[in-house]
Amino acid sequence: MARPDGRSPLQLRPVSLECDVVSHAEGSCLIVQGRTKVLIVATLEQKTPPFLRDTGEGWITAEYGMLPRATLERSPREAAKGKQTGRSLEIQRLIGRALRGVADRRTFPEWTVTLDCDVLVADAGTRCASVTGAWVALALALETLRKRGGLKKPPFREAVAAISVGVLPDRERPEGMVALDLDYIEDSTAHVDLNVVGTSTGRYVEVQGTAEREPFDDKRLREMLTVAKRGCRRLFRAQRKALEGRIPEDWLPPA
Amino acid sequence: MARPDGRSPLQLRPVSLECDVVSHAEGSCLIVQGRTKVLIVATLEQKTPPFLRDTGEGWITAEYGMLPRATLERSPREAAKGKQTGRSLEIQRLIGRALRGVADRRTFPEWTVTLDCDVLVADAGTRCASVTGAWVALALALETLRKRGGLKKPPFREAVAAISVGVLPDRERPEGMVALDLDYIEDSTAHVDLNVVGTSTGRYVEVQGTAEREPFDDKRLREMLTVAKRGCRRLFRAQRKALEGRIPEDWLPPA
Amino acid sequence: MARPDGRSPLQLRPVSLECDVVSHAEGSCLIVQGRTKVLIVATLEQKTPPFLRDTGEGWITAEYGMLPRATLERSPREAAKGKQTGRSLEIQRLIGRALRGVADRRTFPEWTVTLDCDVLVADAGTRCASVTGAWVALALALETLRKRGGLKKPPFREAVAAISVGVLPDRERPEGMVALDLDYIEDSTAHVDLNVVGTSTGRYVEVQGTAEREPFDDKRLREMLTVAKRGCRRLFRAQRKALEGRIPEDWLPPA
Amino acid sequence: MARPDGRSPLQLRPVSLECDVVSHAEGSCLIVQGRTKVLIVATLEQKTPPFLRDTGEGWITAEYGMLPRATLERSPREAAKGKQTGRSLEIQRLIGRALRGVADRRTFPEWTVTLDCDVLVADAGTRCASVTGAWVALALALETLRKRGGLKKPPFREAVAAISVGVLPDRERPEGMVALDLDYIEDSTAHVDLNVVGTSTGRYVEVQGTAEREPFDDKRLREMLTVAKRGCRRLFRAQRKALEGRIPEDWLPPA
Amino acid sequence: MARPDGRSPLQLRPVSLECDVVSHAEGSCLIVQGRTKVLIVATLEQKTPPFLRDTGEGWITAEYGMLPRATLERSPREAAKGKQTGRSLEIQRLIGRALRGVADRRTFPEWTVTLDCDVLVADAGTRCASVTGAWVALALALETLRKRGGLKKPPFREAVAAISVGVLPDRERPEGMVALDLDYIEDSTAHVDLNVVGTSTGRYVEVQGTAEREPFDDKRLREMLTVAKRGCRRLFRAQRKALEGRIPEDWLPPA
Amino acid sequence: MARPDGRSPLQLRPVSLECDVVSHAEGSCLIVQGRTKVLIVATLEQKTPPFLRDTGEGWITAEYGMLPRATLERSPREAAKGKQTGRSLEIQRLIGRALRGVADRRTFPEWTVTLDCDVLVADAGTRCASVTGAWVALALALETLRKRGGLKKPPFREAVAAISVGVLPDRERPEGMVALDLDYIEDSTAHVDLNVVGTSTGRYVEVQGTAEREPFDDKRLREMLTVAKRGCRRLFRAQRKALEGRIPEDWLPPA
Repeated sequence: MARPDGRSPLQLRPVSLECDVVSHAEGSCLIVQGRTKVLIVATLEQKTPPFLRDTGEGWITAEYGMLPRATLERSPREAAKGKQTGRSLEIQRLIGRALRGVADRRTFPEWTVTLDCDVLVADAGTRCASVTGAWVALALALETLRKRGGLKKPPFREAVAAISVGVLPDRERPEGMVALDLDYIEDSTAHVDLNVVGTSTGRYVEVQGTAEREPFDDKRLREMLTVAKRGCRRLFRAQRKALEGRIPEDWLPPA
Repeated sequence: MARPDGRSPLQLRPVSLECDVVSHAEGSCLIVQGRTKVLIVATLEQKTPPFLRDTGEGWITAEYGMLPRATLERSPREAAKGKQTGRSLEIQRLIGRALRGVADRRTFPEWTVTLDCDVLVADAGTRCASVTGAWVALALALETLRKRGGLKKPPFREAVAAISVGVLPDRERPEGMVALDLDYIEDSTAHVDLNVVGTSTGRYVEVQGTAEREPFDDKRLREMLTVAKRGCRRLFRAQRKALEGRIPEDWLPPA
Repeated sequence: MARPDGRSPLQLRPVSLECDVVSHAEGSCLIVQGRTKVLIVATLEQKTPPFLRDTGEGWITAEYGMLPRATLERSPREAAKGKQTGRSLEIQRLIGRALRGVADRRTFPEWTVTLDCDVLVADAGTRCASVTGAWVALALALETLRKRGGLKKPPFREAVAAISVGVLPDRERPEGMVALDLDYIEDSTAHVDLNVVGTSTGRYVEVQGTAEREPFDDKRLREMLTVAKRGCRRLFRAQRKALEGRIPEDWLPPA
Repeated sequence: MARPDGRSPLQLRPVSLECDVVSHAEGSCLIVQGRTKVLIVATLEQKTPPFLRDTGEGWITAEYGMLPRATLERSPREAAKGKQTGRSLEIQRLIGRALRGVADRRTFPEWTVTLDCDVLVADAGTRCASVTGAWVALALALETLRKRGGLKKPPFREAVAAISVGVLPDRERPEGMVALDLDYIEDSTAHVDLNVVGTSTGRYVEVQGTAEREPFDDKRLREMLTVAKRGCRRLFRAQRKALEGRIPEDWLPPA
Repeated sequence: MARPDGRSPLQLRPVSLECDVVSHAEGSCLIVQGRTKVLIVATLEQKTPPFLRDTGEGWITAEYGMLPRATLERSPREAAKGKQTGRSLEIQRLIGRALRGVADRRTFPEWTVTLDCDVLVADAGTRCASVTGAWVALALALETLRKRGGLKKPPFREAVAAISVGVLPDRERPEGMVALDLDYIEDSTAHVDLNVVGTSTGRYVEVQGTAEREPFDDKRLREMLTVAKRGCRRLFRAQRKALEGRIPEDWLPPA
Repeated sequence: MARPDGRSPLQLRPVSLECDVVSHAEGSCLIVQGRTKVLIVATLEQKTPPFLRDTGEGWITAEYGMLPRATLERSPREAAKGKQTGRSLEIQRLIGRALRGVADRRTFPEWTVTLDCDVLVADAGTRCASVTGAWVALALALETLRKRGGLKKPPFREAVAAISVGVLPDRERPEGMVALDLDYIEDSTAHVDLNVVGTSTGRYVEVQGTAEREPFDDKRLREMLTVAKRGCRRLFRAQRKALEGRIPEDWLPPA
């Protein structure tokens, strides 16, 4: 069964990662994945949160927001409502964990990198696109630090990227169809939704699977994980392409 | 290698589920799991959120909070700070999804059940204990509705419970030891933390795995899922025992 | 005229005070008075507010909250609404004043004890029960401090407890009937409501009388105060019983 | 022993009540008591809170605030901090109860009177001055309603006013000196602080006594109540003088 | 065409400036302009915001608020709503800029003057009246500082005052009538609204013109500015009269 | 004297207006002016605020925000701080007034257009760029409405755009140099800052001039206004070019 936009089940949406779109920032990246667009800007500051005092470790944190009309229907502006939604808070915690999962923070003690991920257009997959793009912006910011002499060793153990996989209803198969990188229409009908934060050595930093309608079993989970890894490999190639020549060769994800 | 409290790696902490601890509420349950204690109270109200108008479906939602001194160190009171933490919001969204994942909400159109999960003592595993106990409180509330004539068919497709699994550092095994139902001391040193919301037919409503230190691979994930299911089976027996004689036999999890 | 639950006018509801229900806290107490249940947890911290700098005095403060479904109808969660109600703020200020009224804070300079009073079930009288129980939790926390060598002298001048008295409508007496320790049904029909914070030498730290319907005169006020003192004496015995063997003999209220 | 401003122990500060200071409002009053100044403005609106639907009763409510530099030291503006202090909330609840305690709200069904009490200068006694002045502003607003034909019967059972009494340290008497109507300097050294909301028939709507240092006994309480009543009588005369000719003769407090 | 209150087009409302109405404050002023009344209180504190550290400059800032029933219809209390309105924030920023525009802040390094402008009655023109009165309160506060020896040179380059000018609909002239110092009725029908913050040498610190209905052209703007300056001259005379004898002669606006 | 980026005093920065950058929205526009970038998205909703009920008029409103790292130094996220800054509120009020100043809202009764103006990069002039771009996005949204049959007549009386003018310090001229369209470096040293919202017939909707250091006189104001109009004419040409072929010819600003 065909997908609404004609993609095959395991096909990613077109992905582009544009570097340094905010020239005054230490690192920045615009990720466009299908119609979804997220602007990620990295800020480097010489400070760390209190719990890291005297640990010799730096810090990486993220904030996430969505412009009011990023979605089909306009949502109230979070700043006007006076608080971030639970969804925003949950996503920004995820992005921070994903990046910290592959970075060696002892290489930049006393520094904090803040990744602001702001969704300009949301056609599903914004948390995953934020992770994928945030790693690029983080790499650019740490390269800025390296050039200033503040980084002695490679700051990453490997690269990180994220992708969604879902189980879509399928007239021909009652158990549904596993599909990679859902867009909004697909996402709103999916039976199961899995977000995978994968690393360039094929491991996981985060696996979040949710049954939206029907619980899922081990077999289904394995299938989805396999598909997700395939998607991550594509994303690592896109990250590599975007960053080649901009950061040291040995920080890049494998070709 | 032994665990701090002497348990074997795959051993659950002692679990008790006390029903109807708040007699004026439609359903309530105190779950004690090791030192962790969560009070869950269900409220039944004849209303549904706007997006369910005319859908013939009822609603299930949850709120989560922690008393200020539930933890070893006192945390500021959320009401005094003026907002729920991101963590609280994330957890209450998870609890709601878990319960909705096994309920047939068409059996109680126009009704909302709100599950208030308040942690009296936190020794890790509070989100999982909340899910396990909330299913019990929800069943009791729906039984109240049934007795009042407002429920025509069994409201559950199956039961739901949740448990954590982690990978603990182990002097004898560099890859660490998989352990069930972490307490606070274990949780703060775990390499990987997996929360599994499982159903009584052995499926998943939610799988949330996070690498706290080192990314994990497929093999490790499979191991942890196997252990988690074993824990869930124990929890379903505890739920069954607590609810026997209080709700219809065919709503109970299997013996 | 009989009271709804069959008590005589001057009869207290059954009271129990269970100590150390939160084992990791410096002091804690669950007070059950009729159906009302309040969990009080004391936290001991080596700090004082700025206005006590260099005064040689410690500090005692309280926070009060109610679980959303402590009441017959569920109330919105204070943390979700983004602020404590005026009622909560008023009550926690009262609890703090009550405790400070009998403590000699020069005996624990540089220390703050915070009493978290959280109402699990509310059947009226929660502020009074909080005061009565908070004194117990405070005594336990100061005993913890004493054992650690941080307290050189007895920290209390006397004990403190609180009780409500009301004037209930009475078919046989137009001026109504004075009754001790109102429950929710009584409280919502009372003409006058008096909360008395009394000390074990028969004095007052706080007297708060409010005419809910008809103003009251001096004679009525005297009657109510007499009844309240009788109630307080019962509460001091309950406190003594709960604390005997747990704190030094000379801190206990008289038998 | 003399008081700082030369008053005798039972002497009130000079009190003036100026009516209709805000000409566009339905009722208003500026009360000046010593250096304390409170502006009270009554607003009449044809609406009632939901819980009064179909009860045939109107509503009276109050809000209280203090200008940032009403006090000796400037306090942060409540609106800028984003919330009213617990103290403000407690006081505005008291003012509302005081007025409702003497009004027959069945005489103005479907109407709400809101009393805004804003402290321009605070030299202690602001809550009491607010009550005394708010009764005047309320009477003026209800007279406006009467003139518009919206009030058929006298709306008050009697008048209400409030005054503070304290026990001041006194070199000659260890038990201290009972003094009426404390100013700021006295208030900050008082052993006991009693606020009495009295009615023109010599009864009480509210009695709030607090031991700031040493608990007080029945004898002391009786003494203070006697003094407070004497103060209230003076205030009723001031209210009468301010309102004579402005409201119907039979609403006035006795001469 | 006549104005509602009989004034000629270029006539100011009666203005009075009463000094030192809050005796404990370093400076204060009640400005009454027609029915509009604003109380301005200056607070002098030995501190400056971080961005002025080591600059040798003091700071001047303002806060603005309106009592709930300052207006014809009661508005919700800002403190109860939990935030200042955008209008309040905008106005208080304007007042601060106006005062800083004529002060030489190097004459009082390390000091901050805060001007609290609270509107007791609002009949339009409250922001302008706040500026005019705030300069008076500021001068009084700086005179307090001078007397304490903390000010070596005159702190002002000149005086500042503000006035509104509008274009009112006029049956006889389609282009409308330019009128000085609008009251509320005029303000709500004006085509154009211009607020001018002028100095005593005839210059501007701030010019804010807004077309409420029809855009305006250069000729109209010039006309309005000429009228505004005329109004400012009247206000400088009022300031001079209010301050004569209270501050050094050379700080006063010219006669 | 040359400007930091080599422009002549009356030269605008390069301006581009890209239409329909958010394809699912009713209208959108990315305005780039020098390094400043603002994304404006228009939302069309069939509703109006209460005060417009039964007036036959539609509504236009704007919201303004800045991404945290739009500026050289990162600012805290407004949504995380829990409120919009006073500056944001002031600017969004200005944008709304500017657009309403040239629209005939009777042509789209019952409809509201919301303009979300989000600053991606801020190099000064963001409020002016927001106005200029918002008119474009508004025109596109109203064209969407026209195509759906909801607009019978041209909705604009003329076009609107905004530009800043400042007086920069100039070594050769003590009175400084008037310069058009300041960037951040210029803005932070300017003596006077004037924002002009001009219309395509050469009139003003809003004129906001502020002396940042030294008050300014009439001559200087006239000079600045002349320069601002010149800038506006350039902006109308840019708007025309961006919208040609996208909206009806008779809505366009003149060539």
